[in-house]
Amino acid sequence: MTRRSVGIVIFDDVEVLDFAGPFEVFSRTRTSPGSASRRTDETAPFEVFTVARTAEPVRATGGLRVIPLHAFADAPRIDLLVVPGGFGTRPLLEQEEVLEWIRARAADAELVTSVCTGALVLARAGLLDGRRATTHWAALDLLRAQPGVEVVADQRWVDDGVISSAGVSAGMDMAFYVVEKLLGKEVADETAHYIDYPRGARQIPVSADRSR
Amino acid sequence: MTRRSVGIVIFDDVEVLDFAGPFEVFSRTRTSPGSASRRTDETAPFEVFTVARTAEPVRATGGLRVIPLHAFADAPRIDLLVVPGGFGTRPLLEQEEVLEWIRARAADAELVTSVCTGALVLARAGLLDGRRATTHWAALDLLRAQPGVEVVADQRWVDDGVISSAGVSAGMDMAFYVVEKLLGKEVADETAHYIDYPRGARQIPVSADRSR
Repeated sequence: MTRRSVGIVIFDDVEVLDFAGPFEVFSRTRTSPGSASRRTDETAPFEVFTVARTAEPVRATGGLRVIPLHAFADAPRIDLLVVPGGFGTRPLLEQEEVLEWIRARAADAELVTSVCTGALVLARAGLLDGRRATTHWAALDLLRAQPGVEVVADQRWVDDGVISSAGVSAGMDMAFYVVEKLLGKEVADETAHYIDYPRGARQIPVSADRSR
Repeated sequence: MTRRSVGIVIFDDVEVLDFAGPFEVFSRTRTSPGSASRRTDETAPFEVFTVARTAEPVRATGGLRVIPLHAFADAPRIDLLVVPGGFGTRPLLEQEEVLEWIRARAADAELVTSVCTGALVLARAGLLDGRRATTHWAALDLLRAQPGVEVVADQRWVDDGVISSAGVSAGMDMAFYVVEKLLGKEVADETAHYIDYPRGARQIPVSADRSR
């Protein structure tokens, strides 16, 4: 089957669950149900990888050390771009090389998403101009300070062409929303069941979706 | 402040969220509230690290590459031992060197925990003898096949001296339970709020706790 590639950007002081949550959701999605289908990639609709400015190991929050699969320069085409958050986003806002790479990859991508304060990076790259978006509750004012963004509070995620999510763990709900959007509710719910994630048990606000 | 050390065992084909979920929860816990307290370790009650048989990079499910902070032989004292799951647990069941290390570290630890099929490893190490425990829904029969374990289904976690959790994402609920057990509900709830985790919104069954 043809797989969509999911490129998850990582950097020093990226928040662990911001990248690991969507990594888990996309990489464990299968179009055939059950536990055995997770033993191979046969029915995996996504090929998920981490990507960083260089190939050097990244130090995430709490000291988790991750080796990116690709450096910016050698990353293959990215269909779904995921920009996670964390305190490490702040230096990125001043790194034109990073913003330019994100702009270029976003232009080629089918979907552009952010988790938590990853929205600050998308905003600085100009990708949220004229769009509604959300971020971590403690960073709403920082996002409001970015020109051109209509900031939404109290939503787990916002889909306004670019898909942004609230803080940290909301990235998993956003990822399941994307799985459902692309592959249907049955595949999303079955994957949630596989990872024992009580997706339905949450009081998830309706997405502010103007894109459909 | 005195910190408890949290040693999270990783290995090839460890399930990403099994280790990253508890890593996130324990490493972002602070005894003072708010976002700013997460910028330093000043009020961090846990020091969290990954530990593997050797210092070589580990390949988690989906191809996430993680460098363990410690090898078994050089790991410092572990107060909270976390054994995650994943298909990579199956080879561990036959590795006496790994089981012996877990037994030795468990004997020195304040708390021993498992996520998902990590319970199979604890069972094989003899640490669940005569105890109630749970695991991933697809592995309940495998756990029942381990002698001496009283297997519990349909619980997010079970605390019977050793604390085991259900599949994958249940490890985060188990971690919050441990935070609450050690540091109180206020600290656990505030940390959940920090990572935007709707702990209270879930229908979490009462823990089968015989240890208190």
